[in-house]
Amino acid sequence: MLIRMSSLFLRTLREDPADAEVASHKLLVRAGYIRRAAPGIYTWLPLGLRVLAKIERVVRDEMAAAGAQEVHFPALLPREPYEQTGRWTEYGPNLFRLQDRKEADYLLAPTHEEMFTLLVKDLYSSYKDLPVTLYQIQTKYRDEARPRAGLLRGREFIMKDAYSFDIDEAGLDQSYQAQRDAYERIFTRLGLDYVIVTATSGAMGGSRSEEFLSPTAIGEDTFVRSPGGFAANVEAVTTPAPDPLPYDDAPDSMVIDTPDTPTIDTLVAVLNDVAPRDDRPWQASDTLKNVVFALTQPDGTRELLVVGIPGDREVDIKRLQAAVSPAEVEPAGEADFAKHPALVRGYIGPQVIGRAHTRDENAVRYLVDPRVVTGTRWATGANVAGKHVINLVAGRDFIPDGTIEAAEVRAGDPAPDGSGPLELARGIEIGHIFQLGRKYAEALGLKVLDVNGKQTVVTMGSYGIGVSRALAALAEKYHDERGLSWPVHLAPASVHIVATGKDEAVFTTAEELAAQLETADIEVLYDDRKKVSPGVKFADAELLGVPVIVVVGRGLADGNVEVRTRATGQSDNVPVADALQHLQSLVALPSVE
Amino acid sequence: MLIRMSSLFLRTLREDPADAEVASHKLLVRAGYIRRAAPGIYTWLPLGLRVLAKIERVVRDEMAAAGAQEVHFPALLPREPYEQTGRWTEYGPNLFRLQDRKEADYLLAPTHEEMFTLLVKDLYSSYKDLPVTLYQIQTKYRDEARPRAGLLRGREFIMKDAYSFDIDEAGLDQSYQAQRDAYERIFTRLGLDYVIVTATSGAMGGSRSEEFLSPTAIGEDTFVRSPGGFAANVEAVTTPAPDPLPYDDAPDSMVIDTPDTPTIDTLVAVLNDVAPRDDRPWQASDTLKNVVFALTQPDGTRELLVVGIPGDREVDIKRLQAAVSPAEVEPAGEADFAKHPALVRGYIGPQVIGRAHTRDENAVRYLVDPRVVTGTRWATGANVAGKHVINLVAGRDFIPDGTIEAAEVRAGDPAPDGSGPLELARGIEIGHIFQLGRKYAEALGLKVLDVNGKQTVVTMGSYGIGVSRALAALAEKYHDERGLSWPVHLAPASVHIVATGKDEAVFTTAEELAAQLETADIEVLYDDRKKVSPGVKFADAELLGVPVIVVVGRGLADGNVEVRTRATGQSDNVPVADALQHLQSLVALPSVE
Repeated sequence: MLIRMSSLFLRTLREDPADAEVASHKLLVRAGYIRRAAPGIYTWLPLGLRVLAKIERVVRDEMAAAGAQEVHFPALLPREPYEQTGRWTEYGPNLFRLQDRKEADYLLAPTHEEMFTLLVKDLYSSYKDLPVTLYQIQTKYRDEARPRAGLLRGREFIMKDAYSFDIDEAGLDQSYQAQRDAYERIFTRLGLDYVIVTATSGAMGGSRSEEFLSPTAIGEDTFVRSPGGFAANVEAVTTPAPDPLPYDDAPDSMVIDTPDTPTIDTLVAVLNDVAPRDDRPWQASDTLKNVVFALTQPDGTRELLVVGIPGDREVDIKRLQAAVSPAEVEPAGEADFAKHPALVRGYIGPQVIGRAHTRDENAVRYLVDPRVVTGTRWATGANVAGKHVINLVAGRDFIPDGTIEAAEVRAGDPAPDGSGPLELARGIEIGHIFQLGRKYAEALGLKVLDVNGKQTVVTMGSYGIGVSRALAALAEKYHDERGLSWPVHLAPASVHIVATGKDEAVFTTAEELAAQLETADIEVLYDDRKKVSPGVKFADAELLGVPVIVVVGRGLADGNVEVRTRATGQSDNVPVADALQHLQSLVALPSVE
Repeated sequence: MLIRMSSLFLRTLREDPADAEVASHKLLVRAGYIRRAAPGIYTWLPLGLRVLAKIERVVRDEMAAAGAQEVHFPALLPREPYEQTGRWTEYGPNLFRLQDRKEADYLLAPTHEEMFTLLVKDLYSSYKDLPVTLYQIQTKYRDEARPRAGLLRGREFIMKDAYSFDIDEAGLDQSYQAQRDAYERIFTRLGLDYVIVTATSGAMGGSRSEEFLSPTAIGEDTFVRSPGGFAANVEAVTTPAPDPLPYDDAPDSMVIDTPDTPTIDTLVAVLNDVAPRDDRPWQASDTLKNVVFALTQPDGTRELLVVGIPGDREVDIKRLQAAVSPAEVEPAGEADFAKHPALVRGYIGPQVIGRAHTRDENAVRYLVDPRVVTGTRWATGANVAGKHVINLVAGRDFIPDGTIEAAEVRAGDPAPDGSGPLELARGIEIGHIFQLGRKYAEALGLKVLDVNGKQTVVTMGSYGIGVSRALAALAEKYHDERGLSWPVHLAPASVHIVATGKDEAVFTTAEELAAQLETADIEVLYDDRKKVSPGVKFADAELLGVPVIVVVGRGLADGNVEVRTRATGQSDNVPVADALQHLQSLVALPSVE
């Protein structure tokens, strides 16, 4: 395969696209791999498509090795199956919905659980038919509120989604493990670092769930790790609840004046001033901060939720979002407060809220951080402007409606499994595997006869890889300040020949070398442009990121070409006669990968 | 590659699907290649996907050989570009339209002229950049009023669409020819018969246009051929207009009573009875039939159109539709007639209609068959119930608003180019190539600097292949009453091994043979099912259509396997030891293809 730059449909850009913040987005656009067609919607140009195809080949290969069979579903699907599982509604505004000419409802599928379930129901009827794992590599749609970072969070994107079908939990465990192993092989072969973390299952439903994250500072997902091996998506971190405390000898709660305390810090200062503690000074963690949020359920109903957390922590909106999913959460607004005059902004205390406490079904719900156990004593709002209350005892003076994981996780927090203090890092979600269990099979009636001839609901797993996102994650890892720098097995070509100068002999030699490489089955990108300066050609070569660059130019007078390794910058002069062999060994070297 | 039937995700069906009329639809569903997901929307199952991939490989191969470069556009596209070219409206109800969460308008692209045009505009700026031909293999959407025949007319389907960009007509001719040649190679390699016919360009705009039709009685498209080499889609057939006739000595028109003449035949009989001609009897071709249609423009406005054609012909609604496109046409209904009392059903004559004739801008438009030239004399309606008029002379007694190609084309009609009488046949449209010219480049501002440094609008071609439809066309050609029967290079596997009986030695031998074939890089489908009868296995093998079937069974006692050629039914006993070599030669034989 020989691609000539003179005719390749490519124009590299010197400027970063205006909307690009992360390196993969900037470089993939500048190097002419992708081009924006609409917000979060991209066109693949020739070089990008080549890399994509190579990634897909690795995925297909490992899916086949894991025994998964490839099928291909439509993207345009009827409403009914998604209605039956509730996802038509649960997906809320994230789903692209449309009607056909007969006004029948359709959607552009975000994932295909329903359709795979119905297909297996259609064809299979016995436990003898199971297990089966099916997959597709297919274009998916998700109407993201904030598409960003190029391919990292798009509205039209390419996914590998696989689904396993088993008669029982033991089978599901095996199918899950087989996909998990395949994912490890895929990401290893792609050359992507990954961390497997425990995850929440979100709108998917189901039980066990893990994410494969590619660690990088620009990742959207925060995860935690402990020295003892705990790893989880930050949304999935649970807070160990302390034991309840006795409170028989607790003093009565007491309201005190606390004017001008807009922040926790100012409140703590005032408390230490007007109501000093005997044992030690007041600190932020002694205060109970009550934050008001508005939840919008998938059916559109809006209700308030007050979250109570220790004052030394902030609410992590993504953790809160995961906890309340499929509802969407946002901070309560003016209109919300106007409807609930009992909520005195800045001075909200738990004495007047919560359904359990007020025994009022219509009261605002009140959920607290797991650290707020019975017997703990708090300084918190007195529900009167300018006043707080101290010694407010949980379980005595107020009763929350339950607990919620909404407080930020901080480095040093204990791992929930006791495996030591957590450290935080960021990553790109490149894979996600779920044990769905029977949610979809039940909703859609996928049953088979078991060994006793009894109808049994099938249990399922769902396994996704963001294929286009993986390409961006690779670009995040394999680049430097001059451009992309691909591993040889994923690069759009293995060797990039740059012919420089005006000497005919240069182009003749370059042409011959290109032909030799092509014959040797090495993919070549050949910069045969005649009126382009060496500087532009070198800059383009470094931007495009083919792993081995061969410069045919001045050195030719001494019978040499210059062979550069893109990733390391190492450069060698190689006699023309030895070039083919040298390049063959170079592109076969694992070190180039 | 070895596929085991025991684990293959496949269930063949004995019954034809209820909605299937054509063989490809029935067999592809029964053989488990595809499965309906919604009207006109199909899921690809493992075997279907394999054949599809092989077809795509042939297409990619020949596109590359023709110098076309592969890209990939989104299916979900913003409204604006399609608005600029008018297609947002022109496509009418055939376009799937939707809105995103911000209520911005989007569509699911039926073809991508606009996006390719904008992409080239984005990247290229000089005549030196041209020519370039780009293509994609991609999922397309069209909200067909009547999706039918499985993959032959779907609402989600796979197309190869290519677009050429040239600075001038000579370049466009070359690019067009290169794609035309590539199409010939593609269809030849696929083993599809094809006829290249002149076509109308419909909603695409542009000038030269040809269709590649695969001839078959079940085809939706009718085309014509002449002995002298004329070939056209029936919509593109033009009617040679006779010379005008002198009418100075024509008698005056005369109204006569014609009660009970609901048909042309009864009218002719009455005319011969009450107003016999001197020269010869009246015949149907002496009558002028005026048929009322309603046109709906893309913007929704509805207007009537009267079409006048000789009474011996019917209106061909598809030819009429092509002539009035992008308007949609249907026979006028009760409500239409109610609004136009001057139109006396059954007795409509041209004396009271037509804008030219009545000099009334709001009159109903009247277009006639090209045979209705000045001086021709007609028997036609008198616009009074029970009365017709004879000797009504075109150009004297009525003036049509123009001509229209709406009359049916009949076998024996003269070819428009004088190359002899036409014969009619039917075919499946598998390819369509257009010289678009500058319509899209002009609408979207695609200009480049020409050799004189002047901004010049680029000229374009558009070239489509229905990839999923080609698969169905292949199934139409390669099947018999027992099932599919693929050419070896497109089949989901080359050899289908059927192990029959309960003898362990049978399965051991079959297994060994399968392994040998796999090692020899021959794709094998191995029916290793233990509890399935030989009859079912044979029926499945013939239904699935793998070109070579090897039966390992009773013959093994004599050391033989039976090798059957699916297409011919030829069967040979081959010693087990020779089987591999025999099969290798068989799947390499062009005769198997």
